[in-house]
Amino acid sequence: MNSTKKKLLATTAALVAAGTAATVGAVAASAAAPEAGTKTTVKADAADGNLVQSAHLSVAAATKAAQAGLEAAAKEGQKVSVAVVDRNGNTIVTLRGDGAGPQSYASAEKKAFTAVSWNAPTSVLVGRLSQTPNLKDIPGTLFLPGGVPVQAKGAPVAGIGVAGAPSGDLDEKFARAGAAALGR
Amino acid sequence: MNSTKKKLLATTAALVAAGTAATVGAVAASAAAPEAGTKTTVKADAADGNLVQSAHLSVAAATKAAQAGLEAAAKEGQKVSVAVVDRNGNTIVTLRGDGAGPQSYASAEKKAFTAVSWNAPTSVLVGRLSQTPNLKDIPGTLFLPGGVPVQAKGAPVAGIGVAGAPSGDLDEKFARAGAAALGR
Amino acid sequence: MNSTKKKLLATTAALVAAGTAATVGAVAASAAAPEAGTKTTVKADAADGNLVQSAHLSVAAATKAAQAGLEAAAKEGQKVSVAVVDRNGNTIVTLRGDGAGPQSYASAEKKAFTAVSWNAPTSVLVGRLSQTPNLKDIPGTLFLPGGVPVQAKGAPVAGIGVAGAPSGDLDEKFARAGAAALGR
Amino acid sequence: MNSTKKKLLATTAALVAAGTAATVGAVAASAAAPEAGTKTTVKADAADGNLVQSAHLSVAAATKAAQAGLEAAAKEGQKVSVAVVDRNGNTIVTLRGDGAGPQSYASAEKKAFTAVSWNAPTSVLVGRLSQTPNLKDIPGTLFLPGGVPVQAKGAPVAGIGVAGAPSGDLDEKFARAGAAALGR
Amino acid sequence: MNSTKKKLLATTAALVAAGTAATVGAVAASAAAPEAGTKTTVKADAADGNLVQSAHLSVAAATKAAQAGLEAAAKEGQKVSVAVVDRNGNTIVTLRGDGAGPQSYASAEKKAFTAVSWNAPTSVLVGRLSQTPNLKDIPGTLFLPGGVPVQAKGAPVAGIGVAGAPSGDLDEKFARAGAAALGR
Amino acid sequence: MNSTKKKLLATTAALVAAGTAATVGAVAASAAAPEAGTKTTVKADAADGNLVQSAHLSVAAATKAAQAGLEAAAKEGQKVSVAVVDRNGNTIVTLRGDGAGPQSYASAEKKAFTAVSWNAPTSVLVGRLSQTPNLKDIPGTLFLPGGVPVQAKGAPVAGIGVAGAPSGDLDEKFARAGAAALGR
Amino acid sequence: MNSTKKKLLATTAALVAAGTAATVGAVAASAAAPEAGTKTTVKADAADGNLVQSAHLSVAAATKAAQAGLEAAAKEGQKVSVAVVDRNGNTIVTLRGDGAGPQSYASAEKKAFTAVSWNAPTSVLVGRLSQTPNLKDIPGTLFLPGGVPVQAKGAPVAGIGVAGAPSGDLDEKFARAGAAALGR
Amino acid sequence: MNSTKKKLLATTAALVAAGTAATVGAVAASAAAPEAGTKTTVKADAADGNLVQSAHLSVAAATKAAQAGLEAAAKEGQKVSVAVVDRNGNTIVTLRGDGAGPQSYASAEKKAFTAVSWNAPTSVLVGRLSQTPNLKDIPGTLFLPGGVPVQAKGAPVAGIGVAGAPSGDLDEKFARAGAAALGR
Repeated sequence: MNSTKKKLLATTAALVAAGTAATVGAVAASAAAPEAGTKTTVKADAADGNLVQSAHLSVAAATKAAQAGLEAAAKEGQKVSVAVVDRNGNTIVTLRGDGAGPQSYASAEKKAFTAVSWNAPTSVLVGRLSQTPNLKDIPGTLFLPGGVPVQAKGAPVAGIGVAGAPSGDLDEKFARAGAAALGR
Repeated sequence: MNSTKKKLLATTAALVAAGTAATVGAVAASAAAPEAGTKTTVKADAADGNLVQSAHLSVAAATKAAQAGLEAAAKEGQKVSVAVVDRNGNTIVTLRGDGAGPQSYASAEKKAFTAVSWNAPTSVLVGRLSQTPNLKDIPGTLFLPGGVPVQAKGAPVAGIGVAGAPSGDLDEKFARAGAAALGR
Repeated sequence: MNSTKKKLLATTAALVAAGTAATVGAVAASAAAPEAGTKTTVKADAADGNLVQSAHLSVAAATKAAQAGLEAAAKEGQKVSVAVVDRNGNTIVTLRGDGAGPQSYASAEKKAFTAVSWNAPTSVLVGRLSQTPNLKDIPGTLFLPGGVPVQAKGAPVAGIGVAGAPSGDLDEKFARAGAAALGR
Repeated sequence: MNSTKKKLLATTAALVAAGTAATVGAVAASAAAPEAGTKTTVKADAADGNLVQSAHLSVAAATKAAQAGLEAAAKEGQKVSVAVVDRNGNTIVTLRGDGAGPQSYASAEKKAFTAVSWNAPTSVLVGRLSQTPNLKDIPGTLFLPGGVPVQAKGAPVAGIGVAGAPSGDLDEKFARAGAAALGR
Repeated sequence: MNSTKKKLLATTAALVAAGTAATVGAVAASAAAPEAGTKTTVKADAADGNLVQSAHLSVAAATKAAQAGLEAAAKEGQKVSVAVVDRNGNTIVTLRGDGAGPQSYASAEKKAFTAVSWNAPTSVLVGRLSQTPNLKDIPGTLFLPGGVPVQAKGAPVAGIGVAGAPSGDLDEKFARAGAAALGR
Repeated sequence: MNSTKKKLLATTAALVAAGTAATVGAVAASAAAPEAGTKTTVKADAADGNLVQSAHLSVAAATKAAQAGLEAAAKEGQKVSVAVVDRNGNTIVTLRGDGAGPQSYASAEKKAFTAVSWNAPTSVLVGRLSQTPNLKDIPGTLFLPGGVPVQAKGAPVAGIGVAGAPSGDLDEKFARAGAAALGR
Repeated sequence: MNSTKKKLLATTAALVAAGTAATVGAVAASAAAPEAGTKTTVKADAADGNLVQSAHLSVAAATKAAQAGLEAAAKEGQKVSVAVVDRNGNTIVTLRGDGAGPQSYASAEKKAFTAVSWNAPTSVLVGRLSQTPNLKDIPGTLFLPGGVPVQAKGAPVAGIGVAGAPSGDLDEKFARAGAAALGR
Repeated sequence: MNSTKKKLLATTAALVAAGTAATVGAVAASAAAPEAGTKTTVKADAADGNLVQSAHLSVAAATKAAQAGLEAAAKEGQKVSVAVVDRNGNTIVTLRGDGAGPQSYASAEKKAFTAVSWNAPTSVLVGRLSQTPNLKDIPGTLFLPGGVPVQAKGAPVAGIGVAGAPSGDLDEKFARAGAAALGR
């Protein structure tokens, strides 16, 4: 790790101490409650220099986006499933649409994973396979249109995936509608 | 979400814009590079109100902790494996110790997962099974001593798991040594 | 199949022809579109006597329930994940709550599955293990409080699972809040 | 969800109350029996507006179809396995034919899943891969001839898959024979 | 291998040559057809001394048994799933009963596997756990009543598993009804 | 099932009663021992008409073949793994050769599975992919040279797979050497 | 790593250079052949100080042991499966005995894994569960008698597992017979 | 096994007795401690002729290499994950880089596995697919640039995999930097 990055992280950590950490501490209050004050608790607080911060789509926002995707599809009479996956690859929200094909659920999840992994729509990523066909063998990925990234200041924070419409173009259209709901 | 938390998050988001975001933006610069400026990029920046921030142990810190755990074991002639798992349940670092039993690798990973999930040492969590024995059926968990949480201001940010020593007490001792390396 | 049931099914099938089928047909219109009118389509309509009807929680209702569960938890400062699973065991909705432990996602899903499987709250089902301890070895199940069934005229149509609060009682309280949102 | 669809669903729900529900209620009678009347039962009946109805091939019909497929193969001296999968992707019936190759069981199941997912014979779906080759990476699918959908009023309610014959044409012929048994 | 067993096998092999082999040869005719007569075929016939014969429930018999189990349950108004597994642990038939809980499908399959593995009803095998509790950790097994073995001259040739009724006694009753259908 | 086949099976069943059954009975003696004579034993002997017989490579023969394959490779200084899979797809023997690459173990097993599934060498089966490329998506299969079937009267009874040599031609050569050991 | 251990390793590395390395080099000769001399080969030889040596049961020895276990069982008329797993947890040899129950194959493999993991017979390890019951939740393990370690100078180099006999005592007896074959 | 190889092994075994075994014995001291001196310990020391020795990258060396790879990426502002896998296919070290895409972790592990399996950089191995496209279907492999082998006297002892950079060339550059750290 070069020193420039180290400094940035240190700065970030200081900000954490002043700001976010209050929230985080509040979280701990409940999660740690059953152990608080016991002798068995580990005293292992990480020093600030050990931490990085990452932006994460809230579940409220992710649900809003997923519902917007589903509604966009419903308006065109399409049955789809929608998934939102965060930058760590963990699924935040899934919605299995009424009457959507059984293949759509896992498909939506994987499209979302793929879009957030490369910070690009899966419709674009499909094009990369002509150069590097085996990208599609990476676990968790699916190279079909219908996945779009959600960004914060240009960095990927989540992916939205839609599956089940008769064409990938439609799936992507609905995924974009979901992402658009986050810019308002 | 109550309004106090909302405000904190908003504050955080502002801080992000001023501080962390520089780093994050840098991330995006490379990750998004192949798509930048093309018409195909989705314009889907999430508004700040949609974001939460989470503290994360850096890979450098996680490696330092894992190595400290391994060295503590080596000093006592014990062969172990060590794993560090973040608050999202994703493994950051694994070290399979020389001569450690083959069962130790997955065991260390699951102990770390368990400790960070409940923000308590697994040696304490084992005690909860007398009341709620089926906790141990939750996927990804392992209720054996040797896992300890790493905290930032009391909130769990990671778990460290050690496995392979002849007793759980020893495994926990080495895991604590790993966590202790983060407070310096 | 005895004749009484056959008649009921026949009656149902007639209703289908008059009512539900319109919706179903609409579904088909889009799903089948790319193949309609081609020679390759299989002419394989099932006769009405071959069909049974099953009630299913709509994705809109399932989302409403899941959000209600999440909000009930947030009001008490608890971080949880919520899942809704239908009577066929398929997950309809998942919501990974902000800051919820990583174990909560799969746990919520399995609690929902368990509740709908036996049409009873998981807190009640835990009691059955004293007689039949190996029930908990059935794939997909988790015998921890926090799962409740959703019923239509007494029959199970879905399960709601909540996980991540410090106690199973709290998890169940939030799951019930989710289910209650469906009765309004 | 637009209002037109809402109304259709409401209509359906009413029909349920008058017709199907009797059957469903009967189901509940036994499934819920061990909990009836206890204080622990959740009062969480879903309001009718929360429900959708779906048509489902009965196990009796699915077995009839699977056996018809197996017999059609036997008549031509072919050893095959047969599977029937419902619209939710859950397997209803499997029959591993005497002497059928070990690969045929999973193959039949996946063909059935694929056919019901897109409401088209897999022999037709194979053709779509020239445009969208990665469709075949969707979990659960298999793009080989031998799977055909079963429809009710044009909508897919199940898929029948046959595997193990020396050619996909034969597999499909037997799958169609299975589906044909449902039209009588 | 001692000489007594060798002789028995040799005798068996002779019988094969005279009897079963005709059937087996017929199988080969179709399975091998696409390669017959080509230079690429491996000349690798196993000598008779290398073979053992095993009795296997035909798919027709297995279906008959599974249907009998399902009908026995239906007569008592119970919703169950049924599975038949052969002595090699491979599933021959599955029937997911109408309205049966989603947990019943895998449960039936594992009960059948368990019964044929130890050639005893699972209700009896449950009793062995008091002596050897970890038997239930063997992959593929489930120690719940409802699985019964099918025997040929006392040797296990298949297992029938039933799941989904409110009690294990009922599940076993229906499984026995299925097995009984094979003795007629 | 047509009557010709039924008669063949009946004949076979008679042979079983006279010959194989003695062996099978002996098997049962030990396997059933703990339950013999108890009231709990299910009386569920299958009638002969319900049975089919299948030829199976003995473990002694399979080991002989696997060792012959390994030795043929050793003679040429090649490090390989070898597997033998029966007609039901179950692995009978695996040998992980000293110094063989870690990918060779699963590869050998899948080649053996593939060869016995289609009763042809995998080197031939690879050719079929030009017509039917998705055959290779069937679970358990691997379309690489190195797998050969073992036949009894032309019918497949097992597959031998070899993997780890620098070329598929070599792998197949060693697999054939293994199969050849069975003809002596 | 303390300096004593470092010296031992350095000594070992020297021995490697003088002795074992000849064998290892021979391995490389064939494995690396297709790339030798090309510009694309990575020049990345590890310095000796980076290496540790581990003793490994040869496949010839492992096969000898597994066969001895199988024969010991056959002498007593028992049908079992046998597996040999190395100290890294990788399976070296499996033998599925004729007529052994389908549960025996995975069971043997896991017993062998368990015995080599803790360098003790599984019959002894079962006793540890009274103190630490959750040991049995470690992935890959099975706490049933029938697994024994193979040692070289007291250190575990492999585990032998036997499963399928009517009692764990018998399984262990046969596993010990397998291990005994290695001391001759 | 021919006699030349046998002799080499015997020589190796002697070296073991004189050198490595001391270390190995030390290992055993702790691992076997809980059982030492009990009657239940199996006397099953393998004779020297049964053993082979294999060189293994120490965890210290593997960590050094992985960190070097990560640092090389950081210098160029790239976010990657790194994995080191030994010749047996077992993962020794993983490092999930800060901000690396979620797909990078499994990708790095599989690239490392692939490189050590064939003792060649994955960038070279990709070229082999033009001749043998199905190589990429072998479980555990991934044919994308970014994996390089680590050798000892030309034989593969480990693989290093890097993933997450915008191009495979960059991934490989960083993996080579990791491997280079071992030659110092």
